[in-house]
Amino acid sequence: MTPSDIEAVGLAMHALATELYPHCRSITGDGVRTTLKRLSREIPLTIHEVPTGTEVFDWTVPEEWNIREAWIKDAKGRKVVDFANHNLHLLGYSVPVHEKMSLADLKPRLFTVPEQPDLIPYRTSYYKKNWGFCLPHRDLENLEEGEYEVFIDSDHTQGSLSYGEYFIPGATTEEVLISCHTCHPSLANDNLAGSAVAVALAKQLASQPRRLSYRFCFIPGTIGSITWLATNPNVYPRIKHGLVLTCAGDEGAVTYKKSRSGIAMIDRAMQQVLKTSGDKYHVEEFHPYGYDERQYGSPGINLPVGCLMRSPHGTFPEYHTSADNLDFIKPHCMADTLTKTLDAIEVLESNACFVNLKPMCEPKLGKYGLYGDGGGQRTGEFSELALLWVLNQSDGTNDLLAIAERSGMTFRKILTAALSLEKAGLLRRENQPTPAT
Amino acid sequence: MTPSDIEAVGLAMHALATELYPHCRSITGDGVRTTLKRLSREIPLTIHEVPTGTEVFDWTVPEEWNIREAWIKDAKGRKVVDFANHNLHLLGYSVPVHEKMSLADLKPRLFTVPEQPDLIPYRTSYYKKNWGFCLPHRDLENLEEGEYEVFIDSDHTQGSLSYGEYFIPGATTEEVLISCHTCHPSLANDNLAGSAVAVALAKQLASQPRRLSYRFCFIPGTIGSITWLATNPNVYPRIKHGLVLTCAGDEGAVTYKKSRSGIAMIDRAMQQVLKTSGDKYHVEEFHPYGYDERQYGSPGINLPVGCLMRSPHGTFPEYHTSADNLDFIKPHCMADTLTKTLDAIEVLESNACFVNLKPMCEPKLGKYGLYGDGGGQRTGEFSELALLWVLNQSDGTNDLLAIAERSGMTFRKILTAALSLEKAGLLRRENQPTPAT
Amino acid sequence: MTPSDIEAVGLAMHALATELYPHCRSITGDGVRTTLKRLSREIPLTIHEVPTGTEVFDWTVPEEWNIREAWIKDAKGRKVVDFANHNLHLLGYSVPVHEKMSLADLKPRLFTVPEQPDLIPYRTSYYKKNWGFCLPHRDLENLEEGEYEVFIDSDHTQGSLSYGEYFIPGATTEEVLISCHTCHPSLANDNLAGSAVAVALAKQLASQPRRLSYRFCFIPGTIGSITWLATNPNVYPRIKHGLVLTCAGDEGAVTYKKSRSGIAMIDRAMQQVLKTSGDKYHVEEFHPYGYDERQYGSPGINLPVGCLMRSPHGTFPEYHTSADNLDFIKPHCMADTLTKTLDAIEVLESNACFVNLKPMCEPKLGKYGLYGDGGGQRTGEFSELALLWVLNQSDGTNDLLAIAERSGMTFRKILTAALSLEKAGLLRRENQPTPAT
Repeated sequence: MTPSDIEAVGLAMHALATELYPHCRSITGDGVRTTLKRLSREIPLTIHEVPTGTEVFDWTVPEEWNIREAWIKDAKGRKVVDFANHNLHLLGYSVPVHEKMSLADLKPRLFTVPEQPDLIPYRTSYYKKNWGFCLPHRDLENLEEGEYEVFIDSDHTQGSLSYGEYFIPGATTEEVLISCHTCHPSLANDNLAGSAVAVALAKQLASQPRRLSYRFCFIPGTIGSITWLATNPNVYPRIKHGLVLTCAGDEGAVTYKKSRSGIAMIDRAMQQVLKTSGDKYHVEEFHPYGYDERQYGSPGINLPVGCLMRSPHGTFPEYHTSADNLDFIKPHCMADTLTKTLDAIEVLESNACFVNLKPMCEPKLGKYGLYGDGGGQRTGEFSELALLWVLNQSDGTNDLLAIAERSGMTFRKILTAALSLEKAGLLRRENQPTPAT
Repeated sequence: MTPSDIEAVGLAMHALATELYPHCRSITGDGVRTTLKRLSREIPLTIHEVPTGTEVFDWTVPEEWNIREAWIKDAKGRKVVDFANHNLHLLGYSVPVHEKMSLADLKPRLFTVPEQPDLIPYRTSYYKKNWGFCLPHRDLENLEEGEYEVFIDSDHTQGSLSYGEYFIPGATTEEVLISCHTCHPSLANDNLAGSAVAVALAKQLASQPRRLSYRFCFIPGTIGSITWLATNPNVYPRIKHGLVLTCAGDEGAVTYKKSRSGIAMIDRAMQQVLKTSGDKYHVEEFHPYGYDERQYGSPGINLPVGCLMRSPHGTFPEYHTSADNLDFIKPHCMADTLTKTLDAIEVLESNACFVNLKPMCEPKLGKYGLYGDGGGQRTGEFSELALLWVLNQSDGTNDLLAIAERSGMTFRKILTAALSLEKAGLLRRENQPTPAT
Repeated sequence: MTPSDIEAVGLAMHALATELYPHCRSITGDGVRTTLKRLSREIPLTIHEVPTGTEVFDWTVPEEWNIREAWIKDAKGRKVVDFANHNLHLLGYSVPVHEKMSLADLKPRLFTVPEQPDLIPYRTSYYKKNWGFCLPHRDLENLEEGEYEVFIDSDHTQGSLSYGEYFIPGATTEEVLISCHTCHPSLANDNLAGSAVAVALAKQLASQPRRLSYRFCFIPGTIGSITWLATNPNVYPRIKHGLVLTCAGDEGAVTYKKSRSGIAMIDRAMQQVLKTSGDKYHVEEFHPYGYDERQYGSPGINLPVGCLMRSPHGTFPEYHTSADNLDFIKPHCMADTLTKTLDAIEVLESNACFVNLKPMCEPKLGKYGLYGDGGGQRTGEFSELALLWVLNQSDGTNDLLAIAERSGMTFRKILTAALSLEKAGLLRRENQPTPAT
């Protein structure tokens, strides 16, 4: 993609997030369905509905939750908290209620963050029947004594859990899994940004030649990945690489959290891309908390799935509050996340093992039009250096990624060098290496 | 132990060191016997006497040395150096003498440390017949010319080398060896503190359930461990872990010196305890000098025995001088050494390999009463995190210590989590791992 | 060698470089022959002539180039650039020319370094027929418009490539390869210093007992090593260690660039020497650029050859300019390079695996006259420490180099200790370890 393509994609991703922002998503319900339908206009999603009560490993698909209206009125009938103003106001999965009660009785139902008095926190109670409201701490402090009327028009029904899947076949059946959670209401970085990047990634991949197949899953966090894994065991053996995309739009440096093994090819590819990007970045070891990589990386599943994000969950003050809004995510940051993901996918697609066909000393590059002018020794990183690295290391034991790692050069430079050498008849391509899992 | 228990134990250890301080210990002799007898009032020591002349590997048990009186009188008959004032005044293992001599003839027999002019140094001559006195350099400088009378009433006899042993049986015959040297006269940190910590450790271990058996050896340095090893070859195969305790009472940070292999379970346990203690600490690689770990770690013996200390020998100015006195060791420091040793022993006792019985995705912890309230993601170290680590890593290849190491959490938290999960039926205990040696 | 020997050798090496400095060397031609003849007066070199057109792997031995005269005259007939003044003035391998031309036409043939306006750069065009001159940028700026006469009296003939070889047999047929490039004209550090160090090294090795055989190659860079490798395949299996010597005389810290594998014995030996030298040093990972180590380390050759230098090529401003002159190299620096090379060769010569014959505890060193006086514990590095390291580690799995590495002591101390212990009957020598390649 050209820089202007990338800029345009950044704006398009932000625009998509903006459209999706108002919907009240949860782990089930119509907010998710509306979201998946909107995504379907971008990419041909297959939408799956898994009925309430379906057993998925140690879990059960919960009742579907839908919400129409929710508010608290004060003694004068004024709405002091209203779900219509911001969907974070309601404790997710709240049961219906219509009651009058004193402020003292109401207060235990009201969630705030005193340290961030202007922000609405995000709270849910998926698996324990409960109700409550979330509001800025300043608003809580302004509530006067008196009788309050609370109203929540929600229902929990024998419905289904909805998720979307898009499979892009490649030349081989080896798959890359891209997974995003779609269960959060009006929270932009976590995870509309991830979903928007995934959509742009899918479009780009669908438009280019592919050795690998790609499977995109737009699922509710935790229960969604568990449901998908429980219902798709036949797919596991084909998943050779995977990424969870989340918090993909803030201005923090890109963070890559390694897969459970820590040495999968996706781990090496992503680290090599970040190391040679020239940008700040962070790499985290795997830990069994965070997003759905913990399910993909549970001991019985153990798929090589890492997690790509910018600022990790819980490390930015906007996290899980109303400040995680559309201003918090930036088009150029989402574009940067996308670009780096594509760079890592280039490694997965193109990594190969070559064998030097002139392994006795260096071949005379000039004979093949591969050597620049001028004598004397070169210094620093000069154009032939990647050629020399590829020739030196292509003894049948090092794939291009290993050569990039050892040389410290970008994978793309090493790949370009290898392709030039192959064209010149100096390298023979071996079979694709089997990725580490 | 509660904090007040620990404080009380600290005071008791210091009191024991105080009682033992005046005795003139050496590698043999009545000073050692008196010491072992005093220790026997605390713990049921078996006292062994190995006769002079016994061949122990490349060494021979030396003549027993006893000392009654030793002094230097000046020309006016005043005692200018007197063993009765401080047992460091005499060169250890001095032969008897009663002579008059000039200051010039006497001087080569007088040992001082000019850089520490107020301190009496500690010197011995075990294997070369010799006599001499140690004194503050300032006192040496004040000696006037004239005739001196020197008197040493010592004897070297066909006696024996004495050491004490206390064996505490556990549920298995696998043993932990705890070794302390008891050959130093009035030196507190080196090694009354180590002996006092060992006594407190033995009492504590005797009072609690034990998977492992424990063997405490109170022995003279070098010749003692060599004697013990030469006379107990049948015990080697049972020793799975070991610690030399020394310099256990000063205010320096705890230092752990690894066993010869550097990767024994005691090495990993001790390092994990220190890393997660929140206190400063040092870890030293094995080197073939120091205390008796060098004998336990000789190539033909090669037992997994590390060395736990606070300030290492030779690194503190009080080392091997009269300044290594009872003020130099602190009850709370000895208590800290004890606590950390017990923490490491908890690892040795409790480390085990478990297998996750619900390895497909995370089990739904709430079903088992193992999950706290509230939705939204947690950050930092929260109560369920240890549960998730244990579940994620318990694939049959990682024991609890490995999980603690990977998670960076204390072994106790990981152990507690594993026991909760086992109780909930989510884990099955495998056989105890065989410790690395 | 004594310090005064070393000083004398330093001066002799500088004197040799001084004699060789004026000759116009290139990859072929009489300048190289004169150089090799001068070296033959120091050591009995065999001079090989490989005919033009000989196929050497992917390369062909080029036409021989000789140069007699080259200059540029301005419109007034004044020589403004003259090869007779400095042989760097001519682009190496320039074809003959005699023409008049305008300054504008001449300028593309004139090479300068604007950032170093007083220096003549070094440029060549070995494999593309070309001609040109090199001069200080300041001189270029002073050239006036007008007609210039250029004259180059050179020829390219069906001659040969000349190189020198000196083989010093040792007790075994295992060889150490020492390789220096001799293709640079008046450049002192790169590489008269390397050649002079190699000569001094050869003299020293010829004068002492040798387990290993030594092969010194004085060859033109790249094409020389390729030619040598192509014509000596039978020698490869005997080369167990190798060093390229270059840039051996400047005042920078010694730099060792590892062989391709990075774990060859020469890599370990050289690093141990540098680590324990007390001097600053640098270690570089292998990279497939630099000097002839890239040919020795090509995948089909893969010999364990590192590169020893002081400041690496391209990192010092004098590099490949007229400032790399005889003032830039120092006798004491060349002597230091030589000393460190000899120290590494001592490792290669003397490394061996011993087995402790008294492996049960420490032997009583005093019985063998191996223990100093005095009791009490020693601190720091004391004379018996190397003995204890050798005894402790000599279990049949660690050679002396491994013991030096683990102890952090110099190889020589460990070797001396091992020889004392062997003499005392405490160690048995095993077979020489097979070096890693």
